[in-house]
Amino acid sequence: MGKKNKQFVEKITAMEDDFAQWYTDVVKQAELVDYGQVRGTMIIKPYGYAIWENIKDELDRMFKETGHTNVAFPLFIPESLLQKEKDHVEGFAPEVAWVTHGGDEELTERIAVRPTSEVLFCDYYSNNIHSYRDLPKLYNQWSNVVRWEKTTRPFLRSSEFHWQEGHTAHATDEEATEETNRMLGIYAKLVEEYLAIPVLKGKKTDKEKFAGAEFTLTIEALMHDGKALQSATSHHFGSGFAEAFDITYLDENGESQFVHQTSWGLSTRIMGALIMVHGDNRGLVVPPKVAPTQAMIVPIAQHKEGVLDKAYALRDKLAKVARVDIDGSDKMPGWKFNEYEMKGIPVRVEMGPKDIEKEQVVLVRRDTGEKEFVALADVEERLAALLDEVQANLYNRALEHREEMTHTAKNMDEFKTEIEKGGFVKAMWCGDVACEEKIKEETTATSRCIPFEPESVSDTCVCCGKQAKELVYWAKAY
Amino acid sequence: MGKKNKQFVEKITAMEDDFAQWYTDVVKQAELVDYGQVRGTMIIKPYGYAIWENIKDELDRMFKETGHTNVAFPLFIPESLLQKEKDHVEGFAPEVAWVTHGGDEELTERIAVRPTSEVLFCDYYSNNIHSYRDLPKLYNQWSNVVRWEKTTRPFLRSSEFHWQEGHTAHATDEEATEETNRMLGIYAKLVEEYLAIPVLKGKKTDKEKFAGAEFTLTIEALMHDGKALQSATSHHFGSGFAEAFDITYLDENGESQFVHQTSWGLSTRIMGALIMVHGDNRGLVVPPKVAPTQAMIVPIAQHKEGVLDKAYALRDKLAKVARVDIDGSDKMPGWKFNEYEMKGIPVRVEMGPKDIEKEQVVLVRRDTGEKEFVALADVEERLAALLDEVQANLYNRALEHREEMTHTAKNMDEFKTEIEKGGFVKAMWCGDVACEEKIKEETTATSRCIPFEPESVSDTCVCCGKQAKELVYWAKAY
Repeated sequence: MGKKNKQFVEKITAMEDDFAQWYTDVVKQAELVDYGQVRGTMIIKPYGYAIWENIKDELDRMFKETGHTNVAFPLFIPESLLQKEKDHVEGFAPEVAWVTHGGDEELTERIAVRPTSEVLFCDYYSNNIHSYRDLPKLYNQWSNVVRWEKTTRPFLRSSEFHWQEGHTAHATDEEATEETNRMLGIYAKLVEEYLAIPVLKGKKTDKEKFAGAEFTLTIEALMHDGKALQSATSHHFGSGFAEAFDITYLDENGESQFVHQTSWGLSTRIMGALIMVHGDNRGLVVPPKVAPTQAMIVPIAQHKEGVLDKAYALRDKLAKVARVDIDGSDKMPGWKFNEYEMKGIPVRVEMGPKDIEKEQVVLVRRDTGEKEFVALADVEERLAALLDEVQANLYNRALEHREEMTHTAKNMDEFKTEIEKGGFVKAMWCGDVACEEKIKEETTATSRCIPFEPESVSDTCVCCGKQAKELVYWAKAY
Repeated sequence: MGKKNKQFVEKITAMEDDFAQWYTDVVKQAELVDYGQVRGTMIIKPYGYAIWENIKDELDRMFKETGHTNVAFPLFIPESLLQKEKDHVEGFAPEVAWVTHGGDEELTERIAVRPTSEVLFCDYYSNNIHSYRDLPKLYNQWSNVVRWEKTTRPFLRSSEFHWQEGHTAHATDEEATEETNRMLGIYAKLVEEYLAIPVLKGKKTDKEKFAGAEFTLTIEALMHDGKALQSATSHHFGSGFAEAFDITYLDENGESQFVHQTSWGLSTRIMGALIMVHGDNRGLVVPPKVAPTQAMIVPIAQHKEGVLDKAYALRDKLAKVARVDIDGSDKMPGWKFNEYEMKGIPVRVEMGPKDIEKEQVVLVRRDTGEKEFVALADVEERLAALLDEVQANLYNRALEHREEMTHTAKNMDEFKTEIEKGGFVKAMWCGDVACEEKIKEETTATSRCIPFEPESVSDTCVCCGKQAKELVYWAKAY
């Protein structure tokens, strides 16, 4: 990055020309992220972090409403602790960053920088759960984790990322199942209602489930380029970890029982979905509910007497109904238009001498570019309504896109044709991992989920032609 | 930690008998913290984290009100970057945890787990500040940092701790000075008004300042045992880091200038102050403004008809004026009294059949143990007022304690006598580091701060007897 005088927003690559480059351009030009010095790490800049904070606050509120409490567990895991659950360590060990020295001293045991915290919570629960009275434990933490990835991209796959990880322990398998479902429901609500991103809810196949889980639930979203993105997951551990870590409680009859556990997480990866679902060739488009600034006032001909005063008065008035800001700097209005379009601010409010004379303002919505003149007396009401319209339109547009991009296939020839169109392919599966692997090998598509509501498009497996067990959504994915 | 049936709150050591053990007992029995598996790390449990969240939310609000924005910088610092500022690396290198492997791959350069993030922000600023229009940069982050300490104690000195670190860049030295002062003022306000802890505000001597700073401002609090605790610091870097990292901007005349920087932080260490300033032999005492639960309702003889219903109705009523909770479990009231006293909940509300008959409730304040009967009709108003009284009393009590424990000394004999009484000793200093070192060597006391308001107790240095330059507050410290 050289030093230059940033006077104008730079052009970004068109998404039709090079979607990956478009993504990188938006991330940079909308000032969401900069690259850290250590491979694959990211600096989340003020605007990017403000969006993440809104997501975080909303999710945190939903967690607390459902009885969860926040905690902070250590960043460090001794190697021996990480190795306690076999599937789990196999899943994560290849991606661990290892601390071997503290100051000048070489450590006697290597320490993992947490890639996820199951083993830490399990170790704690084994010491702190004694009786059925101690259950359930409904813990969550907001934390940073490290996974030493080979290929990284801002938000989508970074060596360090930010997330929340919930870890719960329950008396019965049923309660753990209920919790696993409840948390997936919360994620779906957040992502659909706040981020305006429609999601498929379903179960992962055994091949795609979390290392150590009995089953994994997922919400899957479709990006603009037709690739899927796993947006959050909720895992049911049964009593597998409890057995490995000896987490038992005395039930009401004084008998020792293993607990049943869950974990669930949503990460900064969701920022990637936000960009790739709503963004366009003018940059980012932020849904009003998570937008740090919902409406930006741009005064026109602000050097003329009274314009800035009126614009600031408008700001104070609109602040009652929305998160508004004003750009009263001496940059040209056209420059400001470009910048706030790039940043995806949902509504632009223009006000110049002519508008003042006519007692009106101009509202320009970011999602469609439509412009409307609104009487000054009605502007609070209209802005509030318009923000709702933008939020709804973003969701509906994304849903329409997903529906258009959802195909079906009954055999491998069809599958290969349909998958190349981009989007989801619904196809029957026999349940055999060999077919799943073959599909991935031949098409690069992976099983995204088995939907909660059973569907059927034929009776036979799309791959081997044997009796089908269930329908699976397949896609190429991030 | 063995598994046992936790039926009763355990006794804690009396603070007069063994203050350090009392501290450890409170931290554990009030369920604030548990020990992590890696040396010196801690697990902040739900109750401890809820207090920290209240502190965090309030401070975050104050930062945003003064124009600061949150960001997230990486956990990792390449060794070469850490070495760019000489004083800084000397100060921190001995405490760094080093990552040397990513998965199976040995890294070509060692990576530091951040002990603090000055160099990361400096590197970023050098790439992102070009013009005076880019200034000031007012960034803050809430993060975890690691310092490989030899001796650790929960909250007070842990290998990993949580904090916020603000990092700002300004056009002029004056603006940076203003910022350094402003942030110390915010810390003082938080700690005095929310945590009810009186603080001394002042400047650190050169010996005690932050590695790389031009000067460091500090707030110092006095613990119950007479030792001081540095509660937050605000550093002025001048242009030292800017020169090391080449952080320049073009001023309004097109001339290249170095920026002037500050950094400032408050950490989970403040939880240690909260415990050691207000706690007593029955456990923790939490000031109402930061208490997750300000009033706990304990129904008496709750098996009697109508008691629980009335108690829950009381909860709903009081929830309008305070953060209230109710313990309707089948534990004995005496058990509940002990538990909530241990947890330092500011007010206990008792309600039994007799109270219901008389249309009254009993309020018991945690700080003094005083009990009062309040008519049910007046309870909302009285509870709100009582919480204010508790808050004020905690502050006044701590201030009185500090005043009683502040002594003066004019020569080393007096100094040695006074310092052994515990508390602060005000004594004149010539400004020579040799005297500061001698005092530390002979008494273990360190200079805590040079107060903002100049004071004088004599004309000569308490140590060497030469012409005094200024008054310093000295104390043994955490």
